[in-house]
Amino acid sequence: MTRRIHVIGIGAGDPDQVTAQAVAALNDTQVFFAMDKGAAKDDLVALRRHICERFIREPGYRFVELPDPPRARNGDYRQAVADWHAARARVWADAITTELGPDGVGAFLAWGDPSLYDSTLRILDTVAAHVDIDYDVIPGVTAIQTLTARHRIPLNDVGEPVLITTGRQLREHGLTGSAVVMLDGDCAFQTCPPDTRIWWGAYLGTPDELLMAGTVGAVGEEIVRVRADARARHGWIMDTYLLRSAD
Amino acid sequence: MTRRIHVIGIGAGDPDQVTAQAVAALNDTQVFFAMDKGAAKDDLVALRRHICERFIREPGYRFVELPDPPRARNGDYRQAVADWHAARARVWADAITTELGPDGVGAFLAWGDPSLYDSTLRILDTVAAHVDIDYDVIPGVTAIQTLTARHRIPLNDVGEPVLITTGRQLREHGLTGSAVVMLDGDCAFQTCPPDTRIWWGAYLGTPDELLMAGTVGAVGEEIVRVRADARARHGWIMDTYLLRSAD
Ligand SMILES: C[S@@+](CC[C@H](N)C(=O)[O-])C[C@H]1O[C@@H](n2cnc3c(N)ncnc32)[C@H](O)[C@@H]1O
Ligand SMILES: C[S@@+](CC[C@H](N)C(=O)[O-])C[C@H]1O[C@@H](n2cnc3c(N)ncnc32)[C@H](O)[C@@H]1O
Repeated sequence: MTRRIHVIGIGAGDPDQVTAQAVAALNDTQVFFAMDKGAAKDDLVALRRHICERFIREPGYRFVELPDPPRARNGDYRQAVADWHAARARVWADAITTELGPDGVGAFLAWGDPSLYDSTLRILDTVAAHVDIDYDVIPGVTAIQTLTARHRIPLNDVGEPVLITTGRQLREHGLTGSAVVMLDGDCAFQTCPPDTRIWWGAYLGTPDELLMAGTVGAVGEEIVRVRADARARHGWIMDTYLLRSAD
Repeated sequence: MTRRIHVIGIGAGDPDQVTAQAVAALNDTQVFFAMDKGAAKDDLVALRRHICERFIREPGYRFVELPDPPRARNGDYRQAVADWHAARARVWADAITTELGPDGVGAFLAWGDPSLYDSTLRILDTVAAHVDIDYDVIPGVTAIQTLTARHRIPLNDVGEPVLITTGRQLREHGLTGSAVVMLDGDCAFQTCPPDTRIWWGAYLGTPDELLMAGTVGAVGEEIVRVRADARARHGWIMDTYLLRSAD
């Protein structure tokens, strides 16, 4: 008797991005665990509930919210992160054993794909060292694929590489070739040369989607303005962009 | 009256990776265009037919195979590629106007996601300059997401970038940090230091799936052997891997 856990990629905002495999896993699940926080919390919770309502045939599943243990703000940074990670794994292990019967099935719904800038798999790996669980991963459409689809563009130049990176990394290391930037709270594209091409998207796949494209010199300032307005209006923003250097 | 074209990402081998959005686009399509070639051709054609049979509710759609114009083998390489690209666009434009009524709907089914190492969008962009078409892109689960899901691993280290690249690029430029390698006919991971970690997968998402993981030093030779055997058995292979340098 082993508790089973599905980690399900649900796509990056459009419920229609849910795959047939994800639908099967949703229907196999008794308890959906979630650990939401931040300004987008209410919207994310609503989207997940909507996905469950739309794709699950038999009601009877339930949602369990996992408290997020506090993170130490002083002392060594790496140690604080490690402690926090361990504390989260304990919270999850407790919840899994308490909320699921010995042969129960739980799930975590991951935004986009579970492998991309998401901590669910790292935490579950620690959980699995403490309690007997069997977990599988259902891949999903990422914000990257949603961005390129909405702009109808290839991600890579022919035979060329593409870097997936963060706003902070872009600021520190600059751009070579093509890069997709995620987790950028600060419009780091502004540090790129003005002839750099940019394809930007926010709230991709949702009714609030915003798209802009051009060169950093031509549309950069407008993106900064549109982004600030949208963020103020919604209380949160998720945006991603592809950059290609000029040459 | 404008002909419409869907470019539909169908996932990287498992028909269950098809999204709800892809199912809607499949059901909206009258003619499926395809341009297959190479050793995997029969298997790819079979998978696409299987996907259509499984997800399309009303029969009546048809398949049209597009001939692939020959590519010049001598003369300037860049010019030859440009000529070939233009010739393909002409063949596609002809087929679209001949096979679809003035308000007809066609589709191209792209393996994985249409943005990733796939020429469909580039050719359609040229086609759209010649004939009046309206096209949209339905994102799909890529081989990268399938690889990480099957190994149950994150793609990136926390806050760190990941490069998506090819076998040829890896040979030329070596590895820094994390990289996913695609389009590698030649096991380019053998050029990496032995303590490099590797997560390898072939025929991902299919019943023939192969998975191996370890360090290049520990499992590299075995991957080379398993890959050669599988390739001889099937007549073709598609494999992808994630590398992380040791430090
Ligand atoms: C914590 S990461 C999770 C990414 C997710 N696992 C995926 O596969 O797309 C969140 C970042 O993804 C990007 N993102 C996710 N969803 C998005 C959306 N609908 N529109 C624009 N960007 C999005 C943003 O860059 C955001 O900062
Ligand atoms: C022409 S590219 C197309 C990639 C596709 N558009 C995607 O999103 O995955 C083909 C390469 O993708 C990778 N690939 C695609 N499907 C795969 C599978 N089922 N298993 C392993 N690798 C795969 C291999 O590296 C292969 O050389």
